[in-house]
This record gives sequence, structure tokens and C-alpha cells, in this order.
Amino acid sequence: MHSLSEYQEIVAQHFSKIEINKEPKGLYQPIEYILSLGGKRMRPVLTLMAAEIFNSDYSKALNAATAVEVFHNFSLIHDDIMDEAPLRRGKETVHEKWDLNTGILSGDAMLILAYQYFENYEPQIFQKLAKLFSKTALEVCEGQQYDVDFETRDDVTIPEYLKMIEYKTAVLVGAAMKMGAFVAETSENNADLIYDFGLNLGVAFQLQDDYLDAFGDPKTFGKQVGGDIIENKKTYLYLKALEFGNNEQKEQLLHLFSIQPTDNTDKIESVKQIFVETKSAQETQNAIKEFTQKAFETLNKLDVEDSKKEVLRIFGEKLMNRNV
Amino acid sequence: MHSLSEYQEIVAQHFSKIEINKEPKGLYQPIEYILSLGGKRMRPVLTLMAAEIFNSDYSKALNAATAVEVFHNFSLIHDDIMDEAPLRRGKETVHEKWDLNTGILSGDAMLILAYQYFENYEPQIFQKLAKLFSKTALEVCEGQQYDVDFETRDDVTIPEYLKMIEYKTAVLVGAAMKMGAFVAETSENNADLIYDFGLNLGVAFQLQDDYLDAFGDPKTFGKQVGGDIIENKKTYLYLKALEFGNNEQKEQLLHLFSIQPTDNTDKIESVKQIFVETKSAQETQNAIKEFTQKAFETLNKLDVEDSKKEVLRIFGEKLMNRNV
Repeated sequence: MHSLSEYQEIVAQHFSKIEINKEPKGLYQPIEYILSLGGKRMRPVLTLMAAEIFNSDYSKALNAATAVEVFHNFSLIHDDIMDEAPLRRGKETVHEKWDLNTGILSGDAMLILAYQYFENYEPQIFQKLAKLFSKTALEVCEGQQYDVDFETRDDVTIPEYLKMIEYKTAVLVGAAMKMGAFVAETSENNADLIYDFGLNLGVAFQLQDDYLDAFGDPKTFGKQVGGDIIENKKTYLYLKALEFGNNEQKEQLLHLFSIQPTDNTDKIESVKQIFVETKSAQETQNAIKEFTQKAFETLNKLDVEDSKKEVLRIFGEKLMNRNV
Repeated sequence: MHSLSEYQEIVAQHFSKIEINKEPKGLYQPIEYILSLGGKRMRPVLTLMAAEIFNSDYSKALNAATAVEVFHNFSLIHDDIMDEAPLRRGKETVHEKWDLNTGILSGDAMLILAYQYFENYEPQIFQKLAKLFSKTALEVCEGQQYDVDFETRDDVTIPEYLKMIEYKTAVLVGAAMKMGAFVAETSENNADLIYDFGLNLGVAFQLQDDYLDAFGDPKTFGKQVGGDIIENKKTYLYLKALEFGNNEQKEQLLHLFSIQPTDNTDKIESVKQIFVETKSAQETQNAIKEFTQKAFETLNKLDVEDSKKEVLRIFGEKLMNRNV
């Protein structure tokens, strides 16, 4: 097994060598561009890691890992259009740097390119990878649609919210790991367990994102602290505050989420105070721990050496103890 | 073998029974909607036909045929966004009836759904279908990009134009037929030949579309006659007129393609006159015949009974003698 930073280096190296220098340039240059913006590359790292946990060489899993990362970047291009986002990783988004049509079409091409990376595997494994990929990709679309739907709904429940982040974020983490398991040709049971590990860790990760968006350290948190509050986003923190709050707190929160002041400082402080006073902040931390715990429990059932489980546990702990 | 109208009936029946009644509705209703708008369903018919030509039962090819038609409709949704088209088959386009984001996301889901229809085949055939599908889908994206690029270029050559319509339209016709061949598990040579048949017929079909757009009978042509001229579209007719015309004709054509009058009657008549006088109209008809002939020649090389070749020949002749 390699260390986490070694996997990251391998993936970074691999992506720096990918050339999509094809014609027509108008289609392929935006693809090169978005892939060059970097990011944590968490998903492909997990694919390689999973392959080695099940006793395969990581190099066998590179094509599957690439497919997952290319798909992830496809979804970023199309999501950025839908969110009208000007920036991605500090650089112009594709539809900003080029235009709407380029964003749509280059995104489409990336979704297809992702499937093509599976063609390097023999038919049995190809079909398993492509089936899991299609199921997951469709769930990601469904998650995005739920997210859009929730914007205009005021009766979103906690189970609905959890399903949304599961689909929009966590299933791809689970699938990334299961693909490593497929490439390594481990048992079906192991493949299912590693999927569950990734899925639960993915949910925990997303809940932590909600938490840090409000309570993260501005010095280390990558995005603007309070961004979700400014955008009146119905996060886990918000939904739990509405559930736990008394009438006065609920009314105040609903009011704060109906305004868009020029200076958001007071709004952010007031909302955060409600999150703390209603114990929504505490409950969110509990939920993060719960899903992390759930992920770690599936590790116990995995049929691999303890040293390998330890690698995953360290990865999970590192991920969940981040404050960025 | 069934007759053409029988295949059409089978496909129509099949699509009328497809229910994509899943949650979230905001994602799946637009998919049901676009699939319910109908159309000629030429591509799935060709998949079934090809399967039976190579001695398979058409029913084995229904999933592949569905994949092709679902993909085709995905491309219509995204193309309609890019073209800002308000109508499709006389009904509102998806982005008009819903909105831009719905058009993007439901389109994405359809591309994934198309792949899922291949999951009904065993791994060897699944991989062959999915590989051909990915290659073709990427070419369709490239064709669309070339089409966009050509709008702002004034040095498009005839070979470039032919490559554009080949990618944008013809490869999917070829692939639709080759998928039927894959399902029927015929020889590789037969599969390649039926692809070439579809490809050349597809190019002929698209050139005929260019021709009929200017010279079709307004009573029977489905779209507005002269539509390409109104939009200053660089069709085969236009490019050949610039190649064949004398300086005066070229100048006149370039001028006519730089204006957008409120009443287009005179413009359309003048442009059509140039198409005739430069012999571009005649040359376009020659090219249509040439590609149709090329398609028919591949039939001779097919290793199937003559009666089966006859079915394809009749289909080709019917298609190319349309005036709608």
C-alpha cells in the first residue's frame, strides 16, 4: 500500500500527462482547461486506494479512477451553468471563459469520455464498471434535481435532505471505491462493503461541509465562511434549527432567510447564534460523527488484513478532522 | 423480415409503452415529454431491420434501438438550447416548456439512460454496443461543434462540410444499423458493411435535406421552405455556389447572405436562382445520387441472401425519393 500523499502524487502526475489535444479545439480545450484546474482529486485517489486494499496494483485502476474524475468535472461544468457560478477553484468557470453552448457541449463530451476510459478493461469488468457508473451518474443527476427543487420548497424534511446529499455527493465516493474493488476482482461482499464505507463517509463529508460553511475557521476554510447563509441555503444546520427551535427562533430564522442585506455580517452572526442556541450546531456534529462511525463499522466486516483497514481508518479520520 | 411500416409500428408501440415515471418528476417528466413527441423514429427502425437482416429476431434488438432513439432525443434537447429553438415537432422545446437548467439536466440523464439500455445484453455484446455508442456519441458532439464553428468561418471547404454532416448526422445512422448487426452476432465484415451503408445513406439524406430546404415542395416539406436561406446557413448548396459561381454571382450571394430582411421572399428567390444558375443545385443532386450509390454498392458485398439486400435497397430508395 502507498500512503495518501503518494496516491495524490500519482493521480496528480497522471492528470498532468493526460492530453486531450483533439479537434475540434472548441470542444476539447475547455475539457483540458477544467481538468487542469486541479482540486483535491479525492475520488480517483479512493479508487486507487481501494484497488490496492483488495490486493491489486493501483496502476490497473488508473483508467477507472480517471473516468470518475472526468465525470466529476463534467458535473461541475453543468452545475456551474445551473448555479450561474462565475468562478471554480478561483478561476473562471467554463461557461464564463467560453460561453453557455461550450459549457453544455464540452460537458456532454466529458460524460462520454468518462465511459470510454472503461474500455481498457475486459468485457466482464467493463460491464460491471459501466453499470455502476450509469446508476451512479443518474443518481447524481437526481440529486442535483432534488437540490434545485428544494430551493423553492419550504417543507423539506431531514430524510429528504440526507437523500439529496447522498445522491448528489456521496454515491460517487462510494462508486469510486467500488470501482477499485471491481478492478481488483475481490468478492461481491467486499465490493458492497467498500461502497457503503465510501457512501457513509461521503454523507459525513457533506454534512461537515455544511457545518464548516458556518463555523469553519476563515483562515483555513477554502470558501467564504457564511456563504450558505448569504445564499439562504437550506442546509442540515438550517433544517435542524427549524425542527429544534421554539416559535420565536423559527420566526427569526425564517425572517433572516428571507432577506438579502448588502452587508451580511449581522445576518451571518444572528443565524449562527440560532444554530447554536437551538442545538442544531451540536446535532449536526453528532450526525457527522454518526455517519463517520457507520463508515468505520463497515470496515470491521471487510475481509482484508487489519493493516489495510487501518489505511482506510486513517484516511477517514484525516478527512473528518479537517477544518478546511 | 417485416415491412418498413411494420417496423415503424413496432417501434411506435414500443415507445408508447415506455414509462419513465420516476422521481424526481422535474428530471423525468421532460424525458417522457420529448420521447412522446414522436418523429420518424428512423434510427430505431434501422436497428431492428439490421438485426433481422442478419437473421436475428427484431425483439432482441429492441433495447439497442431504444438506446439509439433516446440518445438522438438527448441531442435534440441540448441542440435546441444551443440553437435557441422555440419549437420541436410543432411543440414547445424542453427548455421553453420548462427552463434552461431542466433542458441541461434532463438531457444529461437521457445520455446516461441510453447507456443503461445496453445493460440487457451479455458482457461481450454489451461492450461492443457501448464502445460503438461512445465513439458515435462523441462524434455527434464533434459534428455539433464543427457546425457551431462554421457559423463564424468564411473559408469552410466542401470536405469539411461533408465531415461535419457525417459526424453530426450520418454516424448515428450507421451505428444504429451496426448495433443491430452486433445483436445478431453476424460477422465483423457484415457489421462494418452495414455501418458503411447507413453512413453513406445518412450523408445522402442530409444533403437531400439541404436540397429540399431550398427546392422542396412547400405543400409536403415539413419545415419552412427557404429556412436555411433565411438563416444564412452555409449548406452544401451555398458552398458549391461559391465554388462554381463567377465573381458577380459570388458577390451577390455573399451580399444576400449578409442581410436579414423582414420579408424574405425576394431573398429566397434570388438565392435559389443563383443555386440553379451556378449549377450548384444540379451538383447537389449529383452528390446525393453519388452517396446513395455508394451505400447501395456496399450492399453487394454483404454476405446475406439477396432478398434481404432488397429490403435495404427498397428502404434506401424510398428514403431518397421522399419529397418531404
